[in-house]
Amino acid sequence: MRLVVVGGVAAGTKAASRARRVDPEVEITVYQEEPEPSISECGLPYLLSGMVESRDRLVARTPEKFAEQGIEMKVRHRVEKVLPDTRKLFVRDLATGGTFEDSYDRLVIATGASAVMPPIPGADLDGIFEFRFLTDADEVMRHTKERRPAKAVIVGGGYIGLEVAENLCRIGMEVALIEGEDRVALAYGPEVSERVEAELERNGVDIFTGERVEAFVGDGRVRAVKFGEGQVEADLVILGVGVKPSVELAREAGAEIGATGAIRVDKGMKTNLPDVWAAGDCVETTNLVSGEPSWVPLGDTANQMGRVAGTNAATGEDTLEFPGVLGTGIFQVYDLGVGKTGLSEKDAEAAGYETVSAGVEARDRAGYYPGAEKVFLKLIADAGTGRILGAEAAGSGADKLTDICATAIWGGLSYPDLVNIDLAYSPPFGPALSPVIQAATILSGKFDRAREGVRASE
Amino acid sequence: MRLVVVGGVAAGTKAASRARRVDPEVEITVYQEEPEPSISECGLPYLLSGMVESRDRLVARTPEKFAEQGIEMKVRHRVEKVLPDTRKLFVRDLATGGTFEDSYDRLVIATGASAVMPPIPGADLDGIFEFRFLTDADEVMRHTKERRPAKAVIVGGGYIGLEVAENLCRIGMEVALIEGEDRVALAYGPEVSERVEAELERNGVDIFTGERVEAFVGDGRVRAVKFGEGQVEADLVILGVGVKPSVELAREAGAEIGATGAIRVDKGMKTNLPDVWAAGDCVETTNLVSGEPSWVPLGDTANQMGRVAGTNAATGEDTLEFPGVLGTGIFQVYDLGVGKTGLSEKDAEAAGYETVSAGVEARDRAGYYPGAEKVFLKLIADAGTGRILGAEAAGSGADKLTDICATAIWGGLSYPDLVNIDLAYSPPFGPALSPVIQAATILSGKFDRAREGVRASE
Repeated sequence: MRLVVVGGVAAGTKAASRARRVDPEVEITVYQEEPEPSISECGLPYLLSGMVESRDRLVARTPEKFAEQGIEMKVRHRVEKVLPDTRKLFVRDLATGGTFEDSYDRLVIATGASAVMPPIPGADLDGIFEFRFLTDADEVMRHTKERRPAKAVIVGGGYIGLEVAENLCRIGMEVALIEGEDRVALAYGPEVSERVEAELERNGVDIFTGERVEAFVGDGRVRAVKFGEGQVEADLVILGVGVKPSVELAREAGAEIGATGAIRVDKGMKTNLPDVWAAGDCVETTNLVSGEPSWVPLGDTANQMGRVAGTNAATGEDTLEFPGVLGTGIFQVYDLGVGKTGLSEKDAEAAGYETVSAGVEARDRAGYYPGAEKVFLKLIADAGTGRILGAEAAGSGADKLTDICATAIWGGLSYPDLVNIDLAYSPPFGPALSPVIQAATILSGKFDRAREGVRASE
Repeated sequence: MRLVVVGGVAAGTKAASRARRVDPEVEITVYQEEPEPSISECGLPYLLSGMVESRDRLVARTPEKFAEQGIEMKVRHRVEKVLPDTRKLFVRDLATGGTFEDSYDRLVIATGASAVMPPIPGADLDGIFEFRFLTDADEVMRHTKERRPAKAVIVGGGYIGLEVAENLCRIGMEVALIEGEDRVALAYGPEVSERVEAELERNGVDIFTGERVEAFVGDGRVRAVKFGEGQVEADLVILGVGVKPSVELAREAGAEIGATGAIRVDKGMKTNLPDVWAAGDCVETTNLVSGEPSWVPLGDTANQMGRVAGTNAATGEDTLEFPGVLGTGIFQVYDLGVGKTGLSEKDAEAAGYETVSAGVEARDRAGYYPGAEKVFLKLIADAGTGRILGAEAAGSGADKLTDICATAIWGGLSYPDLVNIDLAYSPPFGPALSPVIQAATILSGKFDRAREGVRASE
């Protein structure tokens, strides 16, 4: 039995490794377009500042390591066509430029996502980069070394833009970040966006919100970025306006594409094509809170999906299921951790919920314990049932609060369940009552008052 | 309506404050034996090293603050008798020595817990202290200032003993800790105990396990502690062999005492006596995993119980319920956080479960991200149903892992639920797959192999 995996980053390598583990006999080849496999893409922003010392640290496993595991890892190979009827593949060897034919019994598509290029005049000037792959980071690093840029402009206030802004600022560049909407970190509520903007500004990043970039200006090399009324000088521009699923190969092969634009799969990560699974940033899944199709290109989810796809491709059965996601995410800018899970208030309203929310500003340890720092938490509940729909946290220990809330939503808990939940307390680790308990208690009061209001008006 | 609260630490003050909030009219008096109310007892060990700068930091609210809230806080008053038939109290004013009578319409008993005094010869020598109340810490601080002890012995390797050992060692004392059982931190499995012992020893604390103290030796002042074959010099001894619920007042009044030796209450925190509630370290509750009565004297739980008791005492109804606990706890020694939730393997077996467990040694952030530190996590599941029964964590981020697992147990989750759970990942906050997911995945493999074993033998 021959298993071919298209894509060798998170989902693809996980699928291949799991398939090997499940079935020691299966023949496994992974085709990977970039020169290295198994890249920790989430670490790329930290290469820029040297917080991650070398690019090699981000290559989890070399092709030789895969070979030891009995997995053929063919880098710099692009799969250009899949013929599901005959189970054939056309592959281009990017080193030689030649193509060859291969075949599969079972196939896993893990073609990932790529950066969205905004249609802005001057985007082809030298010094303007996407920031998605290790090869992009390599180019930015080379530019930085050769040209010593002093002024960087980041276009886009999503998590990649925010992380890159920090890391360029850390090495002494003047950094401006331009966001078209009225605030950064749009996946979060405004309380969180404010904190993110304040943290970046406190550390010297200039932020322009509500400003759309109109043109990049230069003479071969980029010199400035024009927007609205003004312009900022720039000798380095990073585009972080978004990513899109890479689905062309799958679409041409006849794979069904979902409402989000990513490949549709069932719970076993199987596409509509016979013996073809798909996993990672190229597929859509279900948001378990809203019940809606959701596209969440994140490394941890890609790993989990890859495990399911690889196992099922090896067994040929629906051995494992991937249930869906909550929309949990986290990033850090300087000392501010920023996490979310479930639906934001905006998302929840879009999904038809009426919401009740409670925000608390708490501390990450007992007030008297040295070094206590602030953390903000917002809990969002369904006004009808009291079920927790989402949470957002910003500050010290935001990761812990986000994960508690993610687990609560995963378990289908409602606000009353969180009022008396037995979490771990000791002075170095939090206030006597966790911010989660504090926020749930406030929610409880709001629900009580709403009920009294209803009774009073009856 | 007159509400009397006996005990003014965590549960008592919370009950009084909640009652005031629920009913602005009720007359509230709190009797507190010690000279200060509202003491953060969990912070006491940190006073010894100066990590908490002053004792005043541990007094959350003064009697004057309670007065502003309309709560009469009578410190240095001991309630010596409760007569439930006539709803009378006899109270001793510890300042004058006189007694007086008071009465209540509703009563909350929050008499807390006290240190167990081991029957060891010489325990009355000067320089030997319990360590339970702020007044105990005051005495140790006074002794330390006046006598400048150089050699401290801690008797007992529970969390108080461990925290005190660290804090005395931090100010330059030679510290030995003696534990009768074969390891410290007995509420945890041996993997955790080993790590705790190693962390203390690395920082200079001498640990003697499996050694029972036979006598304290001295000439008025303690000079040495004798145990087994040897003895260690000591000019300061702290007894941390355990605590017991303070139930004498309630017992004499006719309150039912449960199997654990603490006051039995229903879910509304009501005792068997009319209009008498109880909360905090003096009551027992239910361990929601084992279903057994459980006595867990912890500050966060006392707060939660106090909220329920105070609300219900104010309304006179079962307005709120306290569902029970998981047995979640955490402490820190030096850089090692140590947390648990649910049942240990030993507890689970005692409760009649057959268990399957999985331990992982992971990192608290992505391997390539600077400063990654180790953390150990063990998940314990019911071999029959796969339900998560308990978890233990030791290392960096142990608090986060403990709280994720506590929330999972609170939600009734099983190991398959944790394999694909959507937790927050970004390089500064953990490995791509949380240690919780890693451990659940190992559990999944163990359950699969067990099932295959059963099939193979059929």
